[in-house]
Amino acid sequence: MRTYDVLVEVSLRPGIADPQGATIERALPALGFEGVSGVRVGKAMRFAIEATDEPAARGAVEELCKRFLTNPVIEDARIELTERS
Amino acid sequence: MRTYDVLVEVSLRPGIADPQGATIERALPALGFEGVSGVRVGKAMRFAIEATDEPAARGAVEELCKRFLTNPVIEDARIELTERS
Repeated sequence: MRTYDVLVEVSLRPGIADPQGATIERALPALGFEGVSGVRVGKAMRFAIEATDEPAARGAVEELCKRFLTNPVIEDARIELTERS
Repeated sequence: MRTYDVLVEVSLRPGIADPQGATIERALPALGFEGVSGVRVGKAMRFAIEATDEPAARGAVEELCKRFLTNPVIEDARIELTERS
C-alpha cells in the first residue's frame, strides 16, 4: 500500500450565490483594499489515504467527495494527490 | 495594471484542535471508507486582484490574509497566484 496526501478544494458551482464571499468583497474597500473582485469562499480539506496506486486513490477520493464531502447539486470538488515518499 | 487569479488556502496551524476534521475521520469507516487519516478542514478562498506586478499582488494578498482573512494566532495561509492572460 502507498500513502497519498490529498487536498480537496470544495467550491460553490458557478451561479450559486455566495453571500460569504460577497460580504468579504463589499467590506474590502472600507479596509483599504482596492481592486479585489469575484470573491468566492469554499472549503479546503487535507488528509492522507492509503491505496495500491494513484488511480485507486483518486477513485476513492472522488467517491468520498460525491457521497460525503460535497453536495454535488451546488458544489464542485477539485482533487490534488501527491504520493508520500 | 495586471489581473491575478488568487487562491488562498486557510488551514488551522499544527497542534490546533480540528473537531470538524476529527468528526469526518471518525465517520468514514462506518461509511465504508478505510485508510483515511489526518483529516483537517480549512477554507479555500478564490478572487481576482489587480496589481502592477506579481510581487505587488502577492504583498497585497499577504496583507489581506494577515489583517482580514485569517486569524494568524491559529491559522496559516497558503497563497497561489496566477496571472490572467
